[in-house]
Amino acid sequence: MTNSIKILRSVQQVRQWRLQCKSSVGFIPTMGALHAGHCSLIKQSIKENDFTVVSIFVNPSQFGPNEDLDNYPRTLEKDLEILQNGYKVDAVFVPKVSEIYPSGIVLDVNQQRGTFVSVHGCSEQLEGVTRPQFFRGVATVVTKLLNVVQPSRIYFGQKDAQQCVVIKNLVKDLLINTEVRIMPTLRESNGLAMSSRNEYLSKEIRMESSQIYKALKIGEEKYRQSNDSKEIIDTIRQNLKDPIEIEYIAISHPDTLEDLEIAIPGAIVSIAVKVPKEDGKARLIDNIIL
Amino acid sequence: MTNSIKILRSVQQVRQWRLQCKSSVGFIPTMGALHAGHCSLIKQSIKENDFTVVSIFVNPSQFGPNEDLDNYPRTLEKDLEILQNGYKVDAVFVPKVSEIYPSGIVLDVNQQRGTFVSVHGCSEQLEGVTRPQFFRGVATVVTKLLNVVQPSRIYFGQKDAQQCVVIKNLVKDLLINTEVRIMPTLRESNGLAMSSRNEYLSKEIRMESSQIYKALKIGEEKYRQSNDSKEIIDTIRQNLKDPIEIEYIAISHPDTLEDLEIAIPGAIVSIAVKVPKEDGKARLIDNIIL
Repeated sequence: MTNSIKILRSVQQVRQWRLQCKSSVGFIPTMGALHAGHCSLIKQSIKENDFTVVSIFVNPSQFGPNEDLDNYPRTLEKDLEILQNGYKVDAVFVPKVSEIYPSGIVLDVNQQRGTFVSVHGCSEQLEGVTRPQFFRGVATVVTKLLNVVQPSRIYFGQKDAQQCVVIKNLVKDLLINTEVRIMPTLRESNGLAMSSRNEYLSKEIRMESSQIYKALKIGEEKYRQSNDSKEIIDTIRQNLKDPIEIEYIAISHPDTLEDLEIAIPGAIVSIAVKVPKEDGKARLIDNIIL
Repeated sequence: MTNSIKILRSVQQVRQWRLQCKSSVGFIPTMGALHAGHCSLIKQSIKENDFTVVSIFVNPSQFGPNEDLDNYPRTLEKDLEILQNGYKVDAVFVPKVSEIYPSGIVLDVNQQRGTFVSVHGCSEQLEGVTRPQFFRGVATVVTKLLNVVQPSRIYFGQKDAQQCVVIKNLVKDLLINTEVRIMPTLRESNGLAMSSRNEYLSKEIRMESSQIYKALKIGEEKYRQSNDSKEIIDTIRQNLKDPIEIEYIAISHPDTLEDLEIAIPGAIVSIAVKVPKEDGKARLIDNIIL
């Protein structure tokens, strides 16, 4: 038995659907390849709102020219099945690229034309170092989607900690009338944070990657003895072994993402690593809140 | 006799007011120092909408560190009198800077923190050459104001031709559900385009500045004989004499602002000049549509 879920393809269709929602609307923007992490956001939205809409859109502008846009997992039929059968989602927005980028979009930032949204101050560090256009792409697409969907609440997972800070600042600064809801990271049974990109990993590497969360938890224990960020970071570093290649470990202010020399309650301890995959390396990120 | 006009100071107050408007809302964003040009936009909005709201906000982010932010004419009492007595405006939004820039705002772009909106492709040429941060500031504040007011229609004057193109692209790209209405330039009796900055000029310079529109009209006549942009621009140039100092004359595509070698119907012929004022020089802009 399938529930009837409305599949919306155009901005116009979303606007028409939205007009009929006279009470609260929850919105979960996704790039598809739905996993239990997304599903926990959906469940929370259904609990908190009268209507829930999910978008599935692999956003080109958040990928660099040498990143995995073409290979990013696309599993639309499976995604729709999950939304149809598992949850009482009211609508799913599955736009074409031209619907979201009416002026077109190319991956080379210098060639891009049209309107872009940047959140300065919290987009440049951490993930922004290796992916300088990433948060501009995220901020731009979220602004567009918020303008179309006009939700009462929008849901993100804590796993993408910097994204959460960028979006909270975006909504505050652009005076957007929505509540940003951040939900805890969902993890596989070994502790690995759920991510659509985990599909890139072999079984062995998935097991090895359980080190990441374990090391973060050891760092958390260290914090109970010392609030010196360097000591906490060193502890985490010492607990990560081959094949985990550390890109960064940082302790950051939860609102501004400024580097903290002294850790405070609420600080974000974030990590990015590289692990081997079949044809090269995969990047994984994770974080905990002190 | 005064009409009762609602003065809204906070984003929250605008949202509450907006909720009560069950039918169309027209919005005229201004920096105050209201003149007949603004008033024609207001009249048009009243004609086309059930509710009309004006904002008065001198937007810091569109001024460079060496521009006239501090000296920009501020005539709030006079402006409110115009809105109260002359027109059936329903509300006026007069926010503090902190209300519109919750993350703060400084004029040095490199020091700025928070969220900014850029419209690439039509912001860099013409006015963008001497004022590289100008349209980023305009696009940012208009996005914020649109998010707060959520108008059915927003009104701008054709006098700021590039601003009109930037805003039309902004609304299209960010999928904002509003209609952008561009109204013809209002002119003083001698043809000088109305502008709040005309207050900087002496009577003599105002008279001399009437050359600008006259030269544009001679350029328009030339276009009837030749669509070669260079010839049209040369004709305009030859019809401008001291004390008018030409900064640029351009013929541009109406949607993209790309330079046109061959003029087409609808093309924008725009001009920027400098004229003497008491303590230096004032910049004036004007344009016509072919």
